[in-house]
Amino acid sequence: MARSWLDIDPSSDFSLANIPFGIISTPDDPSPHVGIAIGTYVLDLKVLADGIGGWNLLPYGGHESNPKVFAQPTLNAFAQLGRAVHRHVRERIQDLLSENTTHPDLLKNNAELREKALVPQQRVQMHLPMAIGDYTDFYAGYHHAYAVGVMFRGPQNALQPNYTHLPVGYHGRASSIVVSGTPVRRPVGQILLDPKADPKQPTVAPSRRLDIELELGCFITKSNPLSQPVGIDEAEEHVFGYVLLNDWSARDIQTWEYVPLGPFNGKNFATTISPWVVLADALEPFRAKGIENPTPVQGYLKEKRGETVYDIQLEVDLTTPEGNTTTVTKTSGKNLMWSFPQMIAHHTLGGCPLRPGDLLGSGTISGPVPEQSGSLLELSEGGKREIQLNGGNETRTFLKDGDTVTLRGFCVGKEGERVGFGECTGRVQG
Amino acid sequence: MARSWLDIDPSSDFSLANIPFGIISTPDDPSPHVGIAIGTYVLDLKVLADGIGGWNLLPYGGHESNPKVFAQPTLNAFAQLGRAVHRHVRERIQDLLSENTTHPDLLKNNAELREKALVPQQRVQMHLPMAIGDYTDFYAGYHHAYAVGVMFRGPQNALQPNYTHLPVGYHGRASSIVVSGTPVRRPVGQILLDPKADPKQPTVAPSRRLDIELELGCFITKSNPLSQPVGIDEAEEHVFGYVLLNDWSARDIQTWEYVPLGPFNGKNFATTISPWVVLADALEPFRAKGIENPTPVQGYLKEKRGETVYDIQLEVDLTTPEGNTTTVTKTSGKNLMWSFPQMIAHHTLGGCPLRPGDLLGSGTISGPVPEQSGSLLELSEGGKREIQLNGGNETRTFLKDGDTVTLRGFCVGKEGERVGFGECTGRVQG
Repeated sequence: MARSWLDIDPSSDFSLANIPFGIISTPDDPSPHVGIAIGTYVLDLKVLADGIGGWNLLPYGGHESNPKVFAQPTLNAFAQLGRAVHRHVRERIQDLLSENTTHPDLLKNNAELREKALVPQQRVQMHLPMAIGDYTDFYAGYHHAYAVGVMFRGPQNALQPNYTHLPVGYHGRASSIVVSGTPVRRPVGQILLDPKADPKQPTVAPSRRLDIELELGCFITKSNPLSQPVGIDEAEEHVFGYVLLNDWSARDIQTWEYVPLGPFNGKNFATTISPWVVLADALEPFRAKGIENPTPVQGYLKEKRGETVYDIQLEVDLTTPEGNTTTVTKTSGKNLMWSFPQMIAHHTLGGCPLRPGDLLGSGTISGPVPEQSGSLLELSEGGKREIQLNGGNETRTFLKDGDTVTLRGFCVGKEGERVGFGECTGRVQG
Repeated sequence: MARSWLDIDPSSDFSLANIPFGIISTPDDPSPHVGIAIGTYVLDLKVLADGIGGWNLLPYGGHESNPKVFAQPTLNAFAQLGRAVHRHVRERIQDLLSENTTHPDLLKNNAELREKALVPQQRVQMHLPMAIGDYTDFYAGYHHAYAVGVMFRGPQNALQPNYTHLPVGYHGRASSIVVSGTPVRRPVGQILLDPKADPKQPTVAPSRRLDIELELGCFITKSNPLSQPVGIDEAEEHVFGYVLLNDWSARDIQTWEYVPLGPFNGKNFATTISPWVVLADALEPFRAKGIENPTPVQGYLKEKRGETVYDIQLEVDLTTPEGNTTTVTKTSGKNLMWSFPQMIAHHTLGGCPLRPGDLLGSGTISGPVPEQSGSLLELSEGGKREIQLNGGNETRTFLKDGDTVTLRGFCVGKEGERVGFGECTGRVQG
């Protein structure tokens, strides 16, 4: 892997091998527009595209035909250009930032443009990267589905009979998806204080079982028209990139409301995503095999390649109101039984259109042992076991007001090059 | 009610008492923009607003500050102006079209503008009226929920314990909402041909149990910020207007997929809505009591007024591929146990934001007797009884390729004035 003329710490998620895209505003330009993360900097692509004149970031005279693509307040216009264009732009940026760039005059040796285009990350405000039309949340994390199933139905019936035949999913709420850093208000809802009372009598109160779900999110780049399914072999071309996703969940609200039509207010109060979209290409070197499916799948779900998910190291930190941080779980993106291409093929099988900016959640990603769980529901065994924080000085079952939850995710390549997501964080407000 | 100088048949849904808003394109102006329906005509508001010069349709110099609101390709910009503006514009249009208009020079006696602005409906193409951010489908039709519950769980457990405590709902798919007239492709999906086989083995095939659901749709006009619930007394101010909604459903796909997270591909292949949005004000004279809830509801769901739903006469026609039409059901909008303000208050209780253009579905509206059912599932008793068509010459349990389904809905006032939705129609393609 080439080195950059910028000083990038080896522990940075934003190496030259990454180049994730996001929506930024800067002190010089407060209107949201496009940038990429590199080391501790943001490279402002609106400034760069203007500053490098005739040498186009976009292929095929693309800057002339799409002069405003990097000035947009969302990545949707860029996403819609398709994966070949994303690849081209990422490679051009990698070249510009490389020690041995083929065009040193453009940025490396151009002090004036460097000064304007490279902004320290702490001076940049991040915004929601996409205008999200529809959000779908799947349930592809096998160990999570199994563990939660055991809690509710016992080990014999932990997984529903459909689980290994299709990627189970449901439609989520797009309007309450927020960017990392946005505070999350503890939701009020109907809950059963005495689940065994007859007749059941709900109370309206703030959730007492506020939880997180550690997930990967996948943004769509290319639409399929109504009634035209996406074949499994074409599904990769519909992926723009990936983010971390925290599917905040109020377990007590969900338990009472969810029959017979699924989760609703227990989920729709907030979903947090990380601000930087890691392009599908950047994760390509980190392909891995997922959880093996014991059931032969239908043809429309059969993938040619064996390595269909990514070896992303995933972690969750819980920071108490006093500021003590504990890593409560470590797991991996390999713990999915269904891949995103399979989710796309299944989602569109009946003809449902996916549109650029639509978001798919993987479902909670847990490892095979309890300490690798992607939710407090699992870590606390349904609220029965206390999770130790801060070396045993504090405990949690579910979240307290003032707690901050931070998801992290990264891959490390053979030469140590790191491709990561940065942080996906949110603080609980009472 | 005033009479119009236009000749409007008393059987027209689009009387002077109505004035529903839609998105049209015309032979003279193929770019989608705003119009209203009146009798057999569309009044082109883009042409009208330009043609009447200084006399503003919009209040408070609104046309100057929002000069493009009627030239937009969706009603979202107009909806966002709020109910006071919608009321003002509707009243100004009613005045312009009245026999005794206070401004006869503007339209009634202005042959040139009349010729340009009034276009026969058959020359107009209708488009989806709103850009729909999120779509939520409720389950507020009591008789439907009960009848379907009896089929699955018997009369003792027909309704889940939460049913009378909260308006049960789930997030639907916005990207596959289509305007009346759009063909609906029979979805392919995983279905169990032998539900009793062990282990269960799904087949991928076109749905064999394609159904309709007769619903009302409610469009949101005013947003609530994240984490700020809408109080029940303010909820009316968040309603823009209403449409008919056909929630096409593939019962066999739904049965296999829906545990444990709710309907997905069984619903997301298409949802058809009628093109004209009937403003909330236009339905005000037709308020009625809904189904009485035997359970005292929580404070946040308590409404001050007793008449919280509308006495809308609802009908469904099924037209065979040969062109024979049978009205298969007649019911009423009164058969809801939960009102739209209650749905809004519940939806936002935990802080979920609703945005202008968001759509809420009522859930299937069925009457208390089987012939008043809003779905074929109920009319055919789960596929066991044949529905007679065309005087008994044909039968259906579920839909055949080539069938056309048409929903109609209208209210009739004391002086015979009719406020209706027009048609919500779709033809099944194989």
